[in-house]
Amino acid sequence: MNDKLAGKHNPWLLPDGVEELLPPAAEGLERLRQSCLQRCARWGYALIMPPAIEYLEALLSGVAHDLDLQTFKLTDQLSGRLMGVRADITPQAARIDAHQLRRDGPVRLCYSGTVLRTRPEGADGSRNPLQMGAELYGHAGIESDVEVITLMAELLAEAGVEALHIDLGHVGIFRGLSAAAGLDADAEARLWDALQRKATADIAELLNALDVSASARGRLAALASLSGGPEVLAEARACLQGAGEAVDEALDALERIAEALAAALPDVTLHFDLGELRGYRYHTGVVFAAYTPGVSGELARGGRYDDIGAVFGRGRPATGFSADLKALYRVTSNGHDRREAAGAIAAPWHGDAALRRKINALRASGETVVWLLPGHEGEAAEMGCDRRLSSTTDGDWRVDPL
Amino acid sequence: MNDKLAGKHNPWLLPDGVEELLPPAAEGLERLRQSCLQRCARWGYALIMPPAIEYLEALLSGVAHDLDLQTFKLTDQLSGRLMGVRADITPQAARIDAHQLRRDGPVRLCYSGTVLRTRPEGADGSRNPLQMGAELYGHAGIESDVEVITLMAELLAEAGVEALHIDLGHVGIFRGLSAAAGLDADAEARLWDALQRKATADIAELLNALDVSASARGRLAALASLSGGPEVLAEARACLQGAGEAVDEALDALERIAEALAAALPDVTLHFDLGELRGYRYHTGVVFAAYTPGVSGELARGGRYDDIGAVFGRGRPATGFSADLKALYRVTSNGHDRREAAGAIAAPWHGDAALRRKINALRASGETVVWLLPGHEGEAAEMGCDRRLSSTTDGDWRVDPL
Repeated sequence: MNDKLAGKHNPWLLPDGVEELLPPAAEGLERLRQSCLQRCARWGYALIMPPAIEYLEALLSGVAHDLDLQTFKLTDQLSGRLMGVRADITPQAARIDAHQLRRDGPVRLCYSGTVLRTRPEGADGSRNPLQMGAELYGHAGIESDVEVITLMAELLAEAGVEALHIDLGHVGIFRGLSAAAGLDADAEARLWDALQRKATADIAELLNALDVSASARGRLAALASLSGGPEVLAEARACLQGAGEAVDEALDALERIAEALAAALPDVTLHFDLGELRGYRYHTGVVFAAYTPGVSGELARGGRYDDIGAVFGRGRPATGFSADLKALYRVTSNGHDRREAAGAIAAPWHGDAALRRKINALRASGETVVWLLPGHEGEAAEMGCDRRLSSTTDGDWRVDPL
Repeated sequence: MNDKLAGKHNPWLLPDGVEELLPPAAEGLERLRQSCLQRCARWGYALIMPPAIEYLEALLSGVAHDLDLQTFKLTDQLSGRLMGVRADITPQAARIDAHQLRRDGPVRLCYSGTVLRTRPEGADGSRNPLQMGAELYGHAGIESDVEVITLMAELLAEAGVEALHIDLGHVGIFRGLSAAAGLDADAEARLWDALQRKATADIAELLNALDVSASARGRLAALASLSGGPEVLAEARACLQGAGEAVDEALDALERIAEALAAALPDVTLHFDLGELRGYRYHTGVVFAAYTPGVSGELARGGRYDDIGAVFGRGRPATGFSADLKALYRVTSNGHDRREAAGAIAAPWHGDAALRRKINALRASGETVVWLLPGHEGEAAEMGCDRRLSSTTDGDWRVDPL
């Protein structure tokens, strides 16, 4: 059947934005996944495996509306209640910290799993990313923010990202300016939306319509343009002066985080964007995203989200990051999927016990041994073999070149 | 809040039959998963990662009705078409072999991923199993059946299953008897259903109502009781005599497979159940399931399913098995989740460059190093640490006992 003629009813086409991985790309992605989880373990992050489905209210409590729109809904046939397929694992990790683990001290958790989204994010976005992330609960200081950002940078470097740029922002600046200006919830939401879209005309129009002081309006208007290198922090100090304690504290936190990162990650370029709010669905403090030149879209993102656990009975400070490992693998493999193993060894189909012992020993030593099934004895090379097992005159077996 | 009082609206309860794994169980399951995939790789099975959602017709073509009932349905907002969340990965692997890889010779594929089911299977069944499996395409002989059964046995032994029992059956025996008796599709379906339920009274009633010869009726009636050790094959030869070539060939195949398995797996107990059809949703030939004493329900199951790829444009011989790794981990860990690593090393929060170098070197050598965040300096033991980093008089850092 011709794919084009079969059109949309071709039974083997995948839905738009849904990808699958074949060999050897799947093996490359699996190696990346294992290496990320191992690195998290060496930083003391314990693995959790939250479920792919939960009751909708557990998945969506305390998160922004756009995560609701991104979540597939299902009816639970057992209870009749609505369930959702997770579109983000971070809120699940917060639930586990708050309700399942219930520890007092810092808790470090990591995870890797598929999430599903009703619509792709961005132009070439995926609807089935392999989300990997690490979260640190129970500590409100900038040291935990620095820790998760440093871990994120190390994972990306290990994955093969060479030039790393980190964008830093702080949701508390907008919140503080909005509170100081006395915006109501509706006005704040509309301004947040315009800032997310970086829609300068809309921002100006909204600000002009607001009944606020000229200085408050000026500070909110300045936010969208406070973007650039480390000099942006000094600019912000100047033009946001008098905006209140919350804004000053946010700028202090950003400055201390930037200092610590510059020391720990001297090769990483830091960028500041104080009006950046796009994609931060439950964040309350510092927010960050990792980029590399030549790749549109971020490689990883995260931030502080101190309030999310409250709905599960226990609000705890929280900070963390996550990445789509499929997108990261695409960037770092650059289309060059490589098999890890050396060539395999072909074994004839033969019931001989000495042959079975030899094969078991070879596999235990890390070799790949492939049976040549009857009728396919001549296809060792097609099976990826560069050596074969031959019987010796004394009834044993040895490895020969193909 | 009291869990009991909160009742079904407790926002952190998971739906029935949906489980999550916390540390250290999640780490134990991840090790089992990695070890299974590595073993498959050493047998020449290449990893694939099919997506968690597909168009419904792609997921359900060529499979039995009960898989349809087990599949969650979603509407694709982009195309308006129905999608399903996979309840089984095997049909996806068949699609990939038939349509994506399109090779002529044998193809070996393995996978591991979450599947979702609308209802739990069995009394303590899961609705979100972690399915792992291996499939061998392109070879119709019993040698490929023997290969996948041997691989399955090796994975289970490696996971820690001590006494392994394998049940063997053959869907072709029932199909052959049914064809020889001239049953129409409806009568065959009702008899298959009664056999699956092992409902002796229903089987007798259905057979009595059929307009078939006494000998055909006798053979179909005998099927449900052909269960036991290797002697069952001889019994079957006697009481199914004259049932036609298809039945004779099925018994030949079972006999040869049993001989090869007895040689390759001398410690495994083989059991034969020629009327066993439960849970085989697309199988056409030999079927098998692995059990261990003291555990209800199978540890893994599989069989031959030669026709399933036809709907994707290319029917190929196929055989394989799959297992729920979460259930297997529960059985083999026996409630004793163990951390793999030795104790961790606590590091003070300190911007010193020599300390950072020391920590990097320790982590690179496989150690776990955990930062003690400000305010939590005294909690090294709670963080799982048994050693700590101390500064030396010459400005370096060394590992001391806690």
